Amino acid sequence: MRWSPPATTQAWSRAISAAAAEIVVALDANGADLGPREVALGAERAAAQGGVRVLLFGSAAELGPAPSGVEIVDAPVSVAKAPDPVRAVRSAPESSIAQAARAVAEGRAGALVSGGSTGAALAAGLFSIRRATGVHRPALAAHVPVPGAPVLLLDVGANAEVRPEHLVQFAHMGAAFARGVLGLAHPRVGLLSNGEEPSRGTADVIAAHAVLAAGSAPAWSFVGNVEGDGLVSGAADVVVCDGFTGNVALKVMEGVSATLLGAVRGAAESGPRSRAGGLLMRPALRGLRDELDPERAGGAYLLGLRRLAVICHGRFAAAGFAAAVRVAARGVREDVVGATGEALAAAGALRRRSGPAEGEGASAAGASVPGRP
Amino acid sequence: MRWSPPATTQAWSRAISAAAAEIVVALDANGADLGPREVALGAERAAAQGGVRVLLFGSAAELGPAPSGVEIVDAPVSVAKAPDPVRAVRSAPESSIAQAARAVAEGRAGALVSGGSTGAALAAGLFSIRRATGVHRPALAAHVPVPGAPVLLLDVGANAEVRPEHLVQFAHMGAAFARGVLGLAHPRVGLLSNGEEPSRGTADVIAAHAVLAAGSAPAWSFVGNVEGDGLVSGAADVVVCDGFTGNVALKVMEGVSATLLGAVRGAAESGPRSRAGGLLMRPALRGLRDELDPERAGGAYLLGLRRLAVICHGRFAAAGFAAAVRVAARGVREDVVGATGEALAAAGALRRRSGPAEGEGASAAGASVPGRP
Repeated sequence: MRWSPPATTQAWSRAISAAAAEIVVALDANGADLGPREVALGAERAAAQGGVRVLLFGSAAELGPAPSGVEIVDAPVSVAKAPDPVRAVRSAPESSIAQAARAVAEGRAGALVSGGSTGAALAAGLFSIRRATGVHRPALAAHVPVPGAPVLLLDVGANAEVRPEHLVQFAHMGAAFARGVLGLAHPRVGLLSNGEEPSRGTADVIAAHAVLAAGSAPAWSFVGNVEGDGLVSGAADVVVCDGFTGNVALKVMEGVSATLLGAVRGAAESGPRSRAGGLLMRPALRGLRDELDPERAGGAYLLGLRRLAVICHGRFAAAGFAAAVRVAARGVREDVVGATGEALAAAGALRRRSGPAEGEGASAAGASVPGRP
Repeated sequence: MRWSPPATTQAWSRAISAAAAEIVVALDANGADLGPREVALGAERAAAQGGVRVLLFGSAAELGPAPSGVEIVDAPVSVAKAPDPVRAVRSAPESSIAQAARAVAEGRAGALVSGGSTGAALAAGLFSIRRATGVHRPALAAHVPVPGAPVLLLDVGANAEVRPEHLVQFAHMGAAFARGVLGLAHPRVGLLSNGEEPSRGTADVIAAHAVLAAGSAPAWSFVGNVEGDGLVSGAADVVVCDGFTGNVALKVMEGVSATLLGAVRGAAESGPRSRAGGLLMRPALRGLRDELDPERAGGAYLLGLRRLAVICHGRFAAAGFAAAVRVAARGVREDVVGATGEALAAAGALRRRSGPAEGEGASAAGASVPGRP
């Protein structure tokens, strides 16, 4: 970031208070399908809105001159396409994602945003930023763009198998994020299951239901089990599940949306009459498509670390990376991590026994490969 | 069924061969939202197409005179709305679903169709018709109407938790049904997971993958893991999973379809220009809606019993019940149960140890309430 002294006293004062409130986000430029320059464009757009400065980790030669509000840290090594991201992050501490995560761990940035590889970002986050105190397992949360009833779904893939106490923590983590970042004053939290009755679900889901129904959380309410169709009908603001089911559910939603919108497009091209109709409806359908745009949410949120991390999809364009940086900055400003810890403590849901030093490593492996720790 | 002698020799000969090929389906008239008469109308329509005769179990007083091709068995007791269907079926052997299932078990009908309650049909099927020899667990399969790429998904709710050998059997059961009833010569069978690599999934999914990848089935092929979006993109003809995940996935698909088609309808009513466009596109969109109509598939198929059972959705109208009866008859004609047994035997996937007599009861409980047996 280039700094030049403001011309007036008033401008000085504004600049000083902006600097005080300014949040630094570490952004990995590698892993995006459209290349590092597209990520840099997203960083520039986010910074242009004020209140956030970006540390951008990538190849300085590829990235060119730093845009305003962005500081480039030369980190040409990428592990975004590594077949085994956990091992790649371990063996390449100079990689852009590992450096970006370390910047967050060391306090040079308040949150991490990754440009594409979920596995590498998960591993780097767990190794460097580490789990927040008392958190069993970080979870990946997605803000699903359902028309009229968006829902925060977690876990969508960090943990293929979870225990009941993990699901209970996910509820607190999701609620704190929904309050701080999504701006919901009193989120309704549900448990994904194959029936609405408390007796429906796997043994672990039934056990988690019992704990959530018995507990009390002043800042949010537990609405019980939510079925698959309830995910898209506004039955809850936050829905909690294991990472296997959540990943399948999220991808089914994305797949059905794409297939159906494609079929509607196909119907609109199925003859001259339909074509005329499709042209007339295009502006309204474009509104719907924008509402369903996954880039608006900025990606998936890795909750349960000492600092917030946002993981972008590799196919995102600049708008998606800009949204991710803004979400990350908002998470820092609203102290989602602190609020999560307080809520877990108040609910008696903190992990009691501190894991051994190896715990972090085992947990990282657990996050990207399946199996209980 | 009323019988009157045909007028000509040729007609006699046709009638005799039809009677020889005629399949009897036992249909429970209780449980449909639109009432027993709607179910009877469905039975009549199915019978009118020939080759099938229906034994209809319900209140004779409510049903009125039997339509052509339909024989009414007076069974006024309904357990379709019972809160605990397993217990209700046990304690009410005179209920319509219990009687219908017994008719199949005793050979008076070749297949069972239920008019609405999944839990009651599952319980009655397990108690009376019982598991096929060598089958661990029956599974509920749904033929999901994806535009251009319909998929048979199982289990969608009979077993909240399954072991790897169950998933392997589901693959054989689904493939045999796809060949016999859906008319696919060489179905492609996939395993639902949170990643395409064989190493992705829960420990049970990974174990099932290893068995399926190592085995060989001449009549179908294993295409590996299928992700949530692969469910709707034609990645496989048959997709296998546990009943918890399958139920969530199916309901997410239904929910997203309904929400999106509603949003498209909303867009088509959002102003005079869109309204005009919507009117022009209506015939094409109606074609898509028809293609997505869940009643066309006739309901869900309970596979793994000694006889086929089809479970309709309570909200079905006559067309749905007619489709269910035709699917059931086709399953009998093509001997899906026999083909499944042969495939399991050839693959060495039959259940080795015969369970105790209590096994059937425990399995029934396991099918409608969660937890391993």
